[in-house]
Amino acid sequence: MRIAQVAPLFERVPPVTYGGTERVVAYLTDALVELGHDVTLFASGDSRTRARLVSAAPRSLRLDTTCRDTMAPQILELDQVSRMAHRFDVIHFHTGFLHLPMARQLSAASVTTMHGRLDIDELAPLMQEVADAPFVSISNHQRRPYPAQNWCATVYHGLPPRLLPFHAVADDYVVFVVRISPEKRVDRAIEIAARAGLELRIAAKIDAVDKEYFDREIAHLMTQPHVRYLGEIGEAEKAELLGGARALLFPIDWPEPFGMVVIEALSCGTPVLAWPGGSVPELIEPGVNGWIVDSIDAAVEALAHADAIDRRACRATFEKRFTAERMARDYVTVYKRLRESRPGCFEARTA
Amino acid sequence: MRIAQVAPLFERVPPVTYGGTERVVAYLTDALVELGHDVTLFASGDSRTRARLVSAAPRSLRLDTTCRDTMAPQILELDQVSRMAHRFDVIHFHTGFLHLPMARQLSAASVTTMHGRLDIDELAPLMQEVADAPFVSISNHQRRPYPAQNWCATVYHGLPPRLLPFHAVADDYVVFVVRISPEKRVDRAIEIAARAGLELRIAAKIDAVDKEYFDREIAHLMTQPHVRYLGEIGEAEKAELLGGARALLFPIDWPEPFGMVVIEALSCGTPVLAWPGGSVPELIEPGVNGWIVDSIDAAVEALAHADAIDRRACRATFEKRFTAERMARDYVTVYKRLRESRPGCFEARTA
Repeated sequence: MRIAQVAPLFERVPPVTYGGTERVVAYLTDALVELGHDVTLFASGDSRTRARLVSAAPRSLRLDTTCRDTMAPQILELDQVSRMAHRFDVIHFHTGFLHLPMARQLSAASVTTMHGRLDIDELAPLMQEVADAPFVSISNHQRRPYPAQNWCATVYHGLPPRLLPFHAVADDYVVFVVRISPEKRVDRAIEIAARAGLELRIAAKIDAVDKEYFDREIAHLMTQPHVRYLGEIGEAEKAELLGGARALLFPIDWPEPFGMVVIEALSCGTPVLAWPGGSVPELIEPGVNGWIVDSIDAAVEALAHADAIDRRACRATFEKRFTAERMARDYVTVYKRLRESRPGCFEARTA
Repeated sequence: MRIAQVAPLFERVPPVTYGGTERVVAYLTDALVELGHDVTLFASGDSRTRARLVSAAPRSLRLDTTCRDTMAPQILELDQVSRMAHRFDVIHFHTGFLHLPMARQLSAASVTTMHGRLDIDELAPLMQEVADAPFVSISNHQRRPYPAQNWCATVYHGLPPRLLPFHAVADDYVVFVVRISPEKRVDRAIEIAARAGLELRIAAKIDAVDKEYFDREIAHLMTQPHVRYLGEIGEAEKAELLGGARALLFPIDWPEPFGMVVIEALSCGTPVLAWPGGSVPELIEPGVNGWIVDSIDAAVEALAHADAIDRRACRATFEKRFTAERMARDYVTVYKRLRESRPGCFEARTA
C-alpha cells in the first residue's frame, strides 16, 4: 500500500531523548517499510527513517530555538499532505486534532491515532463535531469518555524486538522510569522499595512544570540510602537499567492512555508492578508478566515473591503482543478496511 | 450575498478591551449586515453582533481560565465552517494560517485577511506553499516580503463613524495611545512633548513580556512633571482623550502593518504625528491630517505649527477613507470577484 505517516514536528522521528508520539511513529514507519509498503513520512528534517521523508521544518521545533512561530511549519506540513493526498491509499495522522477539518475533504482515506488522554472537558464539543472521523485508540480504556466515536480499532504500541534485549538474570534492584510528576507517584515507588528492602534506581526527567512538586514533596525522599537517582538516560542505558531490574515499578495515579515503559520492561523480560489505572489491565497479565496492586502492602508482598514470575514469559508476552511488526500489521488491517469502505468511513457530512 | 466571517476565539467580537483583529471583524460584520448582506459570524459565544452567531466556545479563550486546551475550540470552529461551507457565497477568514489547508478544498470561495506582520523568517516556506490562496492585505506595505502572493486587494481597516466623534477644539496636550513596547517608542513621545512644552497623556497597556523593558528604560521617564500615565482605558474614555488632544504621537520604530489608533485619532479630528514605518505613509497625508517626521527636532517643529492643520480636514480624510462602511464595500468588491472567478482563485493544486 501507499501509506503516509504524518508526525508532529516538535521532536524528530525518532526523538533524541523524550517524545512518545514521535517514537511510536518511527517504529511504525520502519516496520511498515519492512513489511514491503511504500511509506512517506511527514516529519522534521532531522528525522531518521527508512521511508521517504517530507519535511515542513528542517529541524524539530523543540530544538530549533530560532523559530518564533511554531504553528507555521505545522500548517505547512498539513498543506503538503493535502496537496500530495492523491498519491496515497491511506494517510495516518498523529497530529492531534489539527488536521481534522482538512481530513474531512481529503482525496485519500485517513485515520487518526489519538496519543494523549481524552478525559479533558473542552474536548467534548470537538469530539462530538468529528464523530464521523475514524480514530484508532491506543488502549480500550482511552475510549471511555467517547464510546460513540468512530473507533476503527485499538492498536497497542510496539517496539523493535532488538531495541531492548532480553535479560535472563536480574540484579537486586527495582526501577522507576518515567517523568517525576504527581500522577506518576514516585513517592509510592520509594516507599515500596524501602519496605521490600530493595535498592530503587530512578531514571526520570523533571519537567519545569513539576519542579515545585519535586522540591516540595519528593526531593527529601530521594536522599534515603536505598534511592539512586540517575537523571535522564539514553536508549542504551535504558536497556541495561530495565534489563537488570527485578521489577519495574509503575504505581500510577491517573488514567495512563498507554505506558510505553511497561512494554519496554517486558521487552527486557522484566515484570511490571503497577497500579490499575488506564491501560494497565490491558497490558499486564497478573502472575504472567507482572502484578496489578492497589496498596503498598500488596506491592511489597508481590515483590517478596518476584521469583514466581518467569522472565522468559514476560519476554514472550512482549513478542506476542508488543512488537513493532505486530503494531504495523494491525494498522495495515485498519488501512485496508478504510480504503475499502471509503468514502463511507469519513463522509463529507453537511450541517 | 451570503457571507461568513471567521474570527479568532481569543477575544470576544468586539473585544472587551484590547484585541485588534476581533475589533475589525466586529465593525466589518455589522457594516455588512447594514449593507443588507446575510452574514454569519463564527466567534466566541460572548460576542455581540448583528449577524447570525455560531460559537465553538461559550466564552473568549483569553477570559476562560478553565480552558486547558485552547486549540480544541479553534479546530471545532474550523470544522463547523467546513460543514456549513455550502451555505455561503464566500467565507472570510481572520484566523491567521490555521484554516489554509482546509480552505483549499472548501465548497465555497474563501479569502484571508492577514492581520499581523509578515516579515518573520519561518513564514517564508508556508507563504510559498499557499501561493495560490487569496489574501487581503491591510496595507500595501504589509505585502512587501511576499510580492508574488495571490493578493486580491489592500483593504484598510475602518471604524463606525459615530464611535469616536469629531472634536472641533483641542486642549493643550498631546497623547500616546498604544502598548508600551520597544517598537512603539514611548520614550520618543516623552522627549517630543518635553521639548514642545506640552503635557503628554499616555494611555497604554504594558504586556508581561514588556515589563522588564518598561522597568529598565521607561519607568524613570514617566516621573517627569509633563507626563500623565492613565493606564489602560476603555472605549468611552478613549473618545475623550483622543478628541481633546492637539495631536496623537505615533513615533513607531517597526513596520506597523496598519495602526488602528491612527484612524481612531482621525475620527476625532486629531492630527497624527508619526515616524514613517510600515503603513504610515498610506494613512497620513502630510499637512492634511498629520505629519511624517524622522527626528525629534522635526517632530517638535511640526507641533509648533499644529494649528496649520484643520481638524475638520482630519475628520474628512477619516470619513472618506476609514469608515466601516467603506471597508465593508471594499470587501464586498473582493467577495464578488472571488465568487465569479471561482475556482480559479484558489485551485486545488496538486504536487
